[in-house]
Amino acid sequence: MPYNELRKDYLLDRWVVIATERGRRPTDFAKREKTQAKKGVCPFCPGNEHMTPPAVLAYIESGGKIEKIKDEDDFRHKNWIIRCFSNLFPAFNPPQNTSDRKNFMKSCDLALAVGHHEVLVESPNHDKHPSDASVQQLVHVVNAYLDRLFELSSKPYVKYVSIFRNHGLEAGASLSHAHSQIIATPFVPKIVEEEMKASRKFWQEHGECVFCNIIKRERESPRFIMENMDFVVFAPWASVNPMEFWILPKRHAISPLELSKGEKEGFAKMLKTCFSALKTLLNDPPYNFGFHIALGKTASQHYHWHLEVYPKLAIWAGFEKSTGVYINTVTPETAAESLRKEISP
Amino acid sequence: MPYNELRKDYLLDRWVVIATERGRRPTDFAKREKTQAKKGVCPFCPGNEHMTPPAVLAYIESGGKIEKIKDEDDFRHKNWIIRCFSNLFPAFNPPQNTSDRKNFMKSCDLALAVGHHEVLVESPNHDKHPSDASVQQLVHVVNAYLDRLFELSSKPYVKYVSIFRNHGLEAGASLSHAHSQIIATPFVPKIVEEEMKASRKFWQEHGECVFCNIIKRERESPRFIMENMDFVVFAPWASVNPMEFWILPKRHAISPLELSKGEKEGFAKMLKTCFSALKTLLNDPPYNFGFHIALGKTASQHYHWHLEVYPKLAIWAGFEKSTGVYINTVTPETAAESLRKEISP
Repeated sequence: MPYNELRKDYLLDRWVVIATERGRRPTDFAKREKTQAKKGVCPFCPGNEHMTPPAVLAYIESGGKIEKIKDEDDFRHKNWIIRCFSNLFPAFNPPQNTSDRKNFMKSCDLALAVGHHEVLVESPNHDKHPSDASVQQLVHVVNAYLDRLFELSSKPYVKYVSIFRNHGLEAGASLSHAHSQIIATPFVPKIVEEEMKASRKFWQEHGECVFCNIIKRERESPRFIMENMDFVVFAPWASVNPMEFWILPKRHAISPLELSKGEKEGFAKMLKTCFSALKTLLNDPPYNFGFHIALGKTASQHYHWHLEVYPKLAIWAGFEKSTGVYINTVTPETAAESLRKEISP
Repeated sequence: MPYNELRKDYLLDRWVVIATERGRRPTDFAKREKTQAKKGVCPFCPGNEHMTPPAVLAYIESGGKIEKIKDEDDFRHKNWIIRCFSNLFPAFNPPQNTSDRKNFMKSCDLALAVGHHEVLVESPNHDKHPSDASVQQLVHVVNAYLDRLFELSSKPYVKYVSIFRNHGLEAGASLSHAHSQIIATPFVPKIVEEEMKASRKFWQEHGECVFCNIIKRERESPRFIMENMDFVVFAPWASVNPMEFWILPKRHAISPLELSKGEKEGFAKMLKTCFSALKTLLNDPPYNFGFHIALGKTASQHYHWHLEVYPKLAIWAGFEKSTGVYINTVTPETAAESLRKEISP
């Protein structure tokens, strides 16, 4: 019996067992049945703006031009194409006074969850997920991510901004209307902090950005999926999720705030290509994605922003949760091959 | 609007947002419908032993006495009350030669998954989960855990033994027959290693076991659930799962191998009490549990074994997976209160 491989993440102290013995092919994970979406009125659809908090940002289309409206008081805009507002049940809340801003740490094991938690509705059309939206609409989504990222990261008490997306009931999306979420935290989250430390160390030792180095290596590996002019996609060496893939900009940058107009369009195209392929290959599977970015100038040499996509095809159970060691039953090489074939048959 | 609390784990560098705003009561998590178990023949039921690998351990009842059979070649025992065998799709495999035993690390980011992966069938009766089994049967389960723990931890290439249980389809149990799993790894897993380091540091600074200290503090806290002569149960301060609870032995010990006969029975009773309460309160919810133990003598002063129970009532989504920060919508205090009331109405 051959051994399974234990692989360590590029940067994190995290091991995964690539347990291929079960011999599952990616298509074995294709969803058989549609899980039922919540019934009833969708609070994110146009006309139901009164069901959500007032918008902090909306893009309005009028006469072929896009108008950006910030902190609107008027609920009655109905011709929006992007709409962003506070989560009705926020995990993090804005500080109510200067003292809370500065002194959110109450003790070594207790702090106030000071920050922001927003919902970004990506389209007035209920079902226009990245796999189905137009590239033009996805450019608006990217622009809106960056508007909120800029705004939130400028606040003195915000140390990190997490932009993420849950798709499908099994991946935690309780509402099926196309939307992302944004959480601004008063500290740098653990996983990003660990990546930051490890990439700084690599830079000190090698004088090179570790992600630039990873791109070079993975481009020549069987885990490579595709590239366009500005972005590259591959299945990471130590994927903890079956069919996981990452999208990285070729140009070294710590945050997507540095994207040029052309690069934004390249990124939007890449999103559409990858999520269309995932949808077709696995019959619209649930997934999560999260941006990894750095804020501030100190990480400018060694950190490199990217998007991590985690299809939700397996359940982390007792072993994973109690040990922090993961088991993945699809090799990243197989994942890459099947996505590659789906994209360029 | 009040702030949510950010709480840090006793030992791990892990933060959780206790997001109570959603105002969900524990009973809101009660399962509405039974998820359908896999149909067809159960390979773990008596009479179907040919569907699984040969047993590495079986307890046979004959004439009121329990006979332990190790590494049996004979599949035909049908009157077993406990049966343990290799997982048909093991994540870890035994080493095939001395070289692999010693040199399982192939490079800094690649190793052979050398070890063991076993299934422990807890009862010949399909549905005798800890909530429903007799205390006597649960004592057999505990004894079998310890037999396998002793055997596996004696192997020179084994550095850790994880004993865990997945209950319910949503918690990763693909078969519904009452069973646990055991994985022996050639390294100490990350979460246990982190706990080990932090508890060593606490011991060096305070001359006391950090878990003994936690027991003292939690016993007086609103997170306390119950105790018997030898064990204490509470909802941990920074629970990342709604309704999470831990069972700890009052007597300081690094591993359950040190349990006396009386303590084993006390532990079995505690399992039955806690899992009965959880089942009644939330209509048989899915859950995972995992033992945290130390092997070897070096941790004897500062580590303290315990069982962590994670009801599976929420989905870790894009934020949790990409940042390592968790959101829990039930306060540990509320969790403890509802379990306490269920146990002693």
